[in-house]
Parts: sequence; structure tokens; C-alpha cells
Amino acid sequence: MKKGLFITLEGLDGAGKTTQIALIEEKARQLGLDAIVTKEPGGTPVGDAIRMLLLDPCYSEMTVLTEALLYAASRAQLVHDVIRPALQQNKLVICDRFLDSSLAYQAAGGGLDYDFVWQINRQAVDGCLPDLTFVLDLSPEESRARQPARDRMEQKTLAFHRRVREGFLALAEKFPHRVHIIDACRSPEEVFSEIWEYMSRHLAARR
Amino acid sequence: MKKGLFITLEGLDGAGKTTQIALIEEKARQLGLDAIVTKEPGGTPVGDAIRMLLLDPCYSEMTVLTEALLYAASRAQLVHDVIRPALQQNKLVICDRFLDSSLAYQAAGGGLDYDFVWQINRQAVDGCLPDLTFVLDLSPEESRARQPARDRMEQKTLAFHRRVREGFLALAEKFPHRVHIIDACRSPEEVFSEIWEYMSRHLAARR
Repeated sequence: MKKGLFITLEGLDGAGKTTQIALIEEKARQLGLDAIVTKEPGGTPVGDAIRMLLLDPCYSEMTVLTEALLYAASRAQLVHDVIRPALQQNKLVICDRFLDSSLAYQAAGGGLDYDFVWQINRQAVDGCLPDLTFVLDLSPEESRARQPARDRMEQKTLAFHRRVREGFLALAEKFPHRVHIIDACRSPEEVFSEIWEYMSRHLAARR
Repeated sequence: MKKGLFITLEGLDGAGKTTQIALIEEKARQLGLDAIVTKEPGGTPVGDAIRMLLLDPCYSEMTVLTEALLYAASRAQLVHDVIRPALQQNKLVICDRFLDSSLAYQAAGGGLDYDFVWQINRQAVDGCLPDLTFVLDLSPEESRARQPARDRMEQKTLAFHRRVREGFLALAEKFPHRVHIIDACRSPEEVFSEIWEYMSRHLAARR
């Protein structure tokens, strides 16, 4: 690889992001690629403290604006401490959720202005955008069936999660070269095979 | 009062904000004004948790961008839960630090782009700007002498605090009708007398 490659996985909870990340990481290591896995919110000491705040059901009165700023704060620190240094070392960075989650959850789902969420996040990531983003697409009903609501974000209504899903689908139309919708209602192997097709094409193009 | 009045106090640590706030509150109550006092960061359960994060010396690696987003997150929640409802009930709201602190500390002091800090905060406060802001002006040396550094923000260098002071002075030029520089190297009574002159003029104009 000529330089680092930045991959993000997105989608509703229960869509299989963790499984796919493990499969991508394994495949990358088999090919001798130096890969790191990180996640949002969190991934740094400051970010982990922000994560606890964001997911704590105690803070049910948190406004969506506060939420968006907290996600962006955690993201800024993760880019600075982890993602950018790894990319500079030519690594493959695989991140579980990134700025598209804010566009889907706080803008499409929570009703915040899309341009505002985009602006704060563009600044937060300071030019560090993913090369490839896979949205593991699932209906909110299937998401709920696979993973019962436990934290503050998961406890939001089904209508909210429908808007989030639509938000993710809209991102693929907005960024067709970066964001790919992957049908998550298949076996992990089928899902992975589609993801890897995109990734290997991308890796081949960079050689 | 026809509607609420929103006053903020700014300045380096040790400038005497707490003392002045107590004097303003006492005077306001003597005049039968319904006053509430709040502070930043904090003032709400979410904000208090963010405050702990911001001031904890453990997080010395926190970037100024993360810091600015965390302050804005705390501010957004404080406006939503406390400041706006109180102003809607025609109260006098006295706030210990507000968005000018972000312009002085994260932009002037920390080197973040002024326009970025202004934009995120304009959104965070959602139109809820102070009617009057008093900057209690003090040299960084005097600030340090009055209050030894304990938390993460206070531990920054003297050069940093010089830029913060300049940032506050610049805000008075930028917003001459709202931001007033008050020489804090005088007795609390003299300082209060100048503050109250501005406030009483403002209160008289609103009747």
C-alpha cells in the first residue's frame, strides 16, 4: 500500500459491524497488511469518558445538539491520537462508526440541521475522511430483534431508527464513491464477500 | 423588567467573578428582581459531567478542538435547560463564564480558528446571547498570584493566559455595546460600582 487506507463501518445496532470488522481484520492480516481497529465514540481516554456520558441512560434529558457536539469532541480526539498517526504510518484503519453516524443519528434521526452537523464534523476530523464506508443495512425491526435496547441511544423509538436508516441510505446517494450500502440480512460470509470485493478493488487500485 | 436580562462575567481565574456575582445577586434581590446564578462549564447534570472531564488534569493530552466542542456541548445543554427557560420567565440570569470564554481560551489562547469557534457556539446557544458581558480584567501574573493553578485549564502557561487576556480585550472592541472591560485590580466595591452603573442603565432602558 502506498499510504494508509481508512475504512469505516456504519449501520444500526445489530447489523453485524463487529463480526465484519473481525473478518476484515483477519483477511488484512493474512495479506500482510498492518491493520488497526478502533471505534466510536471512544478509542482514547477522553473519548472513552465521553462515550460513557453519551450512552448512560441517566442523561435522558440530553439535547440532540449536546449529543452532536459530544460525538464530534470524541471524534476530534480519536482522529488526532489514533487515526491520523496510523494512516501516516501507512496502516489500514478500520473504524466502527465515524462521522456518517452523526449525519444519520443526530441530523436525519434527531432533526439537527444537516449542514451544521457536517460543518462541525468536517472541522472535527480536520480533513481525515474515510476512503471507504460500508453501511450494513437492516430494518429497525430486525435491528431491535437482534439486539435489545440497553443504552441511551438504543432506547430511542423505532420511528427514530427508521429516520436513521433513511439517513444512511441518503449518504450513499450523496457520496456514491465512498459510501456503499451492504444488505446485512444475509450470512456473515456473504456480507463479508461483498465488502471484500470493494476493498480488494480499492487496494488493487492503490498498488 | 419587560423580559429576562442575561448577564455574563468573564475574565482570567482569580479576577473576582464569584465575588461580583454574589454582589450583583444581592443587589438584584434587594430591588425585587428575580435572579438566578449559573456557571460554565456545568450547571446541568450532563454539563457537570463534561466539566469534570474538562478540568481533570488526567486528560492533559486533550486537543484544543476537543476542548472547544466539549465546552460548546455543555453550553448547549445549559442554554436549553436553564438559561432560556429562566429568561422566558423574565428572570435576571447571571452566568459565570459563557461563550466569550471559548473565544478567548480556545481561539485566542489555544489557536483555534475564531470563526469556527464562533460558528459552533452560535449554534450551541441557538440565539441566546448575553445582553451584557463584564470582563474582569487582570494581568496573568496577578491572576496566578491570586489563585494558584490546580486544574487542567489553570495549568496552561503564562504565555497562554496572556493570549487569553488579549482575546477578551479584543472582544470588547468587536462587541462594544455588549462587552465591557472592568479593571479588576481595585477593591470589590469599586469593581461592583462600575458593573452596577452599566446594569442600572440597562435596567432603566428596559422599563
